[in-house]
Amino acid sequence: MASGSGQKLTIGVDVGGTNIRAGLVGARGRVYHRDKRPTPREGEAGEIVAAIVASIEAMLSKPKVTRKKITGIGVAAPGPLNTKTGVIMNPPNLPSWRDLPLKKILEKELKIPVDLENDANAAAVGEHWIGAGKNADSMIMITLGTGVGGGLIIGGKLWHGASDVAGEIGHTTIDPEGMRCACGNKGCLEVYVSATGIAERMRSVLDQGGESAVVEMLNGDRSKLTSELIYEAAEEGDLLARLTLEDTGVYLGIGVANLVNVFNPELVVVGGGVTRAGRLLFDPMKAEANKRSFQAAAKAVEIVPGELGDDAGIIGAARTVMLRKRRS
Amino acid sequence: MASGSGQKLTIGVDVGGTNIRAGLVGARGRVYHRDKRPTPREGEAGEIVAAIVASIEAMLSKPKVTRKKITGIGVAAPGPLNTKTGVIMNPPNLPSWRDLPLKKILEKELKIPVDLENDANAAAVGEHWIGAGKNADSMIMITLGTGVGGGLIIGGKLWHGASDVAGEIGHTTIDPEGMRCACGNKGCLEVYVSATGIAERMRSVLDQGGESAVVEMLNGDRSKLTSELIYEAAEEGDLLARLTLEDTGVYLGIGVANLVNVFNPELVVVGGGVTRAGRLLFDPMKAEANKRSFQAAAKAVEIVPGELGDDAGIIGAARTVMLRKRRS
Repeated sequence: MASGSGQKLTIGVDVGGTNIRAGLVGARGRVYHRDKRPTPREGEAGEIVAAIVASIEAMLSKPKVTRKKITGIGVAAPGPLNTKTGVIMNPPNLPSWRDLPLKKILEKELKIPVDLENDANAAAVGEHWIGAGKNADSMIMITLGTGVGGGLIIGGKLWHGASDVAGEIGHTTIDPEGMRCACGNKGCLEVYVSATGIAERMRSVLDQGGESAVVEMLNGDRSKLTSELIYEAAEEGDLLARLTLEDTGVYLGIGVANLVNVFNPELVVVGGGVTRAGRLLFDPMKAEANKRSFQAAAKAVEIVPGELGDDAGIIGAARTVMLRKRRS
Repeated sequence: MASGSGQKLTIGVDVGGTNIRAGLVGARGRVYHRDKRPTPREGEAGEIVAAIVASIEAMLSKPKVTRKKITGIGVAAPGPLNTKTGVIMNPPNLPSWRDLPLKKILEKELKIPVDLENDANAAAVGEHWIGAGKNADSMIMITLGTGVGGGLIIGGKLWHGASDVAGEIGHTTIDPEGMRCACGNKGCLEVYVSATGIAERMRSVLDQGGESAVVEMLNGDRSKLTSELIYEAAEEGDLLARLTLEDTGVYLGIGVANLVNVFNPELVVVGGGVTRAGRLLFDPMKAEANKRSFQAAAKAVEIVPGELGDDAGIIGAARTVMLRKRRS
């Protein structure tokens, strides 16, 4: 138990559209305690901030944890955000957060230094530190959840870009005349491969008369279809669910090939809830990526699932604090 | 005149599918002499190598140029190639060059150290040194010619990737069910926006009965249609030629937006012969890129034409030698 060992601890918080997760992270990345609570979805910014504070206080109140042992708090949140000022700009999934100075608010409330990082970047940093990307010189992280995020490790370091928004892989166009995305563009990768996108694609086939076991699982209410239900049905052999996941893999493979051709990375790590679909997703993704990549780039890259699961954001957020302290 | 000044000189050579260009480059990037000769297109590898040697010897034979003044020879050549071993792998536009150890051959012949660099990377290095990208921390170079190449400057340095093939922007998919590319993939950017691609797209509209002044300019022989002729006709107001260039800009804009969303660079520099089309190409490209880019990334980026023209490759190849010498 770290809290007795005298070692320094960092609090990592991962603020998602669905859940807020927090963890006490040791100097080598071990997570000692965890807290998980639903994100007040319909709430004002203040309500969500209160939930974040509560999750951090849950960590601080663990036995033998003293404020002196805490090096800082790392918060992974949906972008776009400014890591220097700690202000969240206008996250599509948390619309009440326009121009929210989250770093300042949390520091005032908690009297502990706070670092903010984009959620997909945090996952990239976490996987690169102690997960699937350990020691990689170049790595692309793709996170598949409610949205699709990305993070780039170049020359062993996270690449933030000119205005802190590098890695918006979900909003690269894979079909110029494709479906409309919430960002205003048409044919974004996210529209096809996010959890929402997967469910919507299958729903539209069902609406056109497609047959699947999920209809019965939903008692006919197709509006309740989720990506999780699709994995379940696919694992039980449902053909339409399998085809939906296969198409998801193909779309993802196109996006991955584009990244591989431009970056020529050592590693592509794919994480997030959607990867629970496992090989039903990874096999067609790898095949398509391989088909569309330049041979010399395809040979050099490995495409692997993330290793840290739901902890990736917490661990990466904590690591962000450690790296910033090392630099300063 | 540098040759009298005692300053060090570097020879830069740019081996293209159409021409071999060489130049004597001063320590600050000034080009003192130039040589240009056609690439023996149907020739064996040996014939092309002989032409390269001749172009370098033309530089060495300039008055007051002595071998002692030459720091090295930089050669920009079509990739994929290995910059460490100096071997050219399998360039689609120079098929006789499979696994050609160009560095070794030239060093044996000329007794001067040779550095090899991918042609689009060399253009990126040149523009970043003394052209449109001076002092940029992050920059994407796109070269539009017979093919479409790319080079990435990240953190002020050229990014080579895990196996020396980063920057293959021309082979990113912009339409998954699009036209077949020479690389085997479907819907690559190169198919739409290379000089060849532009001519082919317009030819296919003519074949379907489209009307244009170029038909007369070609005396009816549509197989001779070139991108240059299309610019000429467009400048004279030919509607179909203008639409062809506008479409080219839109396709390019999709490719640029994808790069901007992933990298979030300060600068995108577009160079190469096709940019002679000027605003007829740049205006629709910028509009489409802006429409499809994330707001925070679109705001941070400038999209500009290259400044070094046909010298970009020569200057960048020479700069590659200087940078390598500085490191070693």
